[in-house]
Amino acid sequence: MQELIRGLIQKNNSKIFMVVLDGLGGLPVNGKTELEAARTPNLDSLSKRSATGLHIPVSYGITPGSGPGHLGIFGYDPREWLIGRGVLEALGLGIELKDTDVAIRCNYATIREGLVKDRRAGRIPTENSKKLTARLQDEINQIDEAEIIFAAGMEHRFAVIFRFPEPLEAGSDNINDTDPQKDGKHPLKPVPGNHQSERVARVAEKLIERAKEILRNEEKANYILLRGISQVPSIPSFEDIFGLRALAVAVYPMYRGLARLVGMDTPPLNGDIKEELDFLKENLSEYDFFFMHVKKVDSYGEDGNFEGKAGKIEEFDSYVPDLLELAPDVLIVTGDHATPAVMREHSWHPVPVMIHAPYVLGGLSEAFTERECLRGELGIFPAYNILPLALANAGRLKKYGA
Amino acid sequence: MQELIRGLIQKNNSKIFMVVLDGLGGLPVNGKTELEAARTPNLDSLSKRSATGLHIPVSYGITPGSGPGHLGIFGYDPREWLIGRGVLEALGLGIELKDTDVAIRCNYATIREGLVKDRRAGRIPTENSKKLTARLQDEINQIDEAEIIFAAGMEHRFAVIFRFPEPLEAGSDNINDTDPQKDGKHPLKPVPGNHQSERVARVAEKLIERAKEILRNEEKANYILLRGISQVPSIPSFEDIFGLRALAVAVYPMYRGLARLVGMDTPPLNGDIKEELDFLKENLSEYDFFFMHVKKVDSYGEDGNFEGKAGKIEEFDSYVPDLLELAPDVLIVTGDHATPAVMREHSWHPVPVMIHAPYVLGGLSEAFTERECLRGELGIFPAYNILPLALANAGRLKKYGA
Repeated sequence: MQELIRGLIQKNNSKIFMVVLDGLGGLPVNGKTELEAARTPNLDSLSKRSATGLHIPVSYGITPGSGPGHLGIFGYDPREWLIGRGVLEALGLGIELKDTDVAIRCNYATIREGLVKDRRAGRIPTENSKKLTARLQDEINQIDEAEIIFAAGMEHRFAVIFRFPEPLEAGSDNINDTDPQKDGKHPLKPVPGNHQSERVARVAEKLIERAKEILRNEEKANYILLRGISQVPSIPSFEDIFGLRALAVAVYPMYRGLARLVGMDTPPLNGDIKEELDFLKENLSEYDFFFMHVKKVDSYGEDGNFEGKAGKIEEFDSYVPDLLELAPDVLIVTGDHATPAVMREHSWHPVPVMIHAPYVLGGLSEAFTERECLRGELGIFPAYNILPLALANAGRLKKYGA
Repeated sequence: MQELIRGLIQKNNSKIFMVVLDGLGGLPVNGKTELEAARTPNLDSLSKRSATGLHIPVSYGITPGSGPGHLGIFGYDPREWLIGRGVLEALGLGIELKDTDVAIRCNYATIREGLVKDRRAGRIPTENSKKLTARLQDEINQIDEAEIIFAAGMEHRFAVIFRFPEPLEAGSDNINDTDPQKDGKHPLKPVPGNHQSERVARVAEKLIERAKEILRNEEKANYILLRGISQVPSIPSFEDIFGLRALAVAVYPMYRGLARLVGMDTPPLNGDIKEELDFLKENLSEYDFFFMHVKKVDSYGEDGNFEGKAGKIEEFDSYVPDLLELAPDVLIVTGDHATPAVMREHSWHPVPVMIHAPYVLGGLSEAFTERECLRGELGIFPAYNILPLALANAGRLKKYGA
């Protein structure tokens, strides 16, 4: 399908905004979902004049992580492109990954007489863990031909990047986790699953040995376990497929990282919705496509804070007039997945979406909510179709066939 | 999917009518679409007693040409079968193509000192172009083993068929356009892209040389450019897959040609809706499936004539009682794509469809419009599923599995 789209691309000066309220979809508490409880006069009014519907992030019943959730709304079938856990962890810690890199989630662990006593090293405080990670970085900069980059995380967690001198072959990350998954067992060796991963496994093995040596006097964190060893998937770029110069307007490193994986520009940015809007405005002339990410909706959902989530949606609603003032040719408002406060986690439920553009039916939804979007002209459809619809509405797709 | 359907076919005496109002779907002007503005008491009444929904011709955001638009409603996935531009042009000019043929869209062009001065030969009048094409046909009947057939078109356009003595291998049309796309450049040579297309390219090269010689004294049209070199795709036939003897009830050559590509019978026919109905009636006993094509709805849409389009829909509505009098077991009314008058061209929007048959839910749509069809039992679905639904409603599909 992406090949078909690529062949139909025609460029013009249109601007496409995609606003992603992270974890937007919800479920009822006392009869109303977060979107239904929130007072959102601007979104409601816009939904009456827009194409509305619900997207399915991955497939029926599948709850997406942030990676698949974003790949879908970026126009990629998330069942085709998998983002490894090491890569996602590194992105979340703000590391810019390249095609020369292998990324690994690591745990500090406690080992005694060759057996893993505590896979999380007693969940050592973040402060201690940071110091240890800095020490590892001081002592280990290079193993074989790979540069070694450490990034501290929360509690017992950190990430390691092996940066090789040249781009890696596909399959270079085909190496098992060394975490035995249960305390009281031997840690596993990193075993290469194929020819391409052999030298990566060698570096991993040496890293474990050197870390063990450096950490030998630590009471708790005297060992490291490697998980989710992964390289950057070679996803065809957003510009290559969709012909769009794209800018990520996102505060959190992980979402900037996800956008970078598909080739969006991702300058750092601090602040909240107001700052994101200002940033978008400043860069309006330089790009065709703007991915604007609002994180806190999801965070409140994960905290089970129904009112907080509804409040954050209301706050975004108050900025809708400012967004419209920038006169996007196509404005999409949606989420990457649902995070119902009542569930306190991501869920599989379809996510409301609206496309505001000149050539829509409209007049089908009375408000921007799950139930009203169900009445809309887009129906319930796979998330990766949002992008082709955006392109069509922006006049950026030629006719298919004569 | 077609293999599965083929295996379930059972024949009976049912009659299936598929009425295609070309470019049926629309968009609101002053709040109402063409279908909403049109007074269509018969279609509205029928929609209340029918299964209704909207079909997606190709995929989300994809605007279909006439070829893909018709393949979809004929039950073929238009992403799998591509109809070349040369083939479509030849079909539109009324040429019956065979599996021995390569079809080419041609332009008369002006050449000076080896450079293309005007790719369209100053858009010479159709009258002049017809004379030139007749002269070319007089002088060129055969090149190598291929019979050469010319067909005059409008202004600078015409078509050429190379008819070889035996069916062509797949890939025989793998040859570039000779049109350099810009004035001031050298025309390109027809270069074979593979082994199979070599002899076709040789014929093309000789054709260009001979035409140049014949046209050498013309002031404007002294050269020809070849585009969209294509052979007939070997689409499995309608009768083979769906077990239906099918008749095309269509006035315009292109639509008869498209129907012929899937193996429908396509006798010529003049007139409009009235004549089409009479023709259908006369041939009722001979066929199982009747594809009735109403062109003008699309033509008015492409002219931006909202009232004209609505009027043509109203005119068709007045014949619905006559259609029903012929007692089809299944009556489908739909379009091949949308042509909103406000856009003046084909569009990607889903197209209303209704299936009138004994075993439907019904009672969901109050009228035959885009918005009312959204409420219907068929939902929004790919066009190529209309045919299996028609077969099921006609009692022509056995149970799948035990």
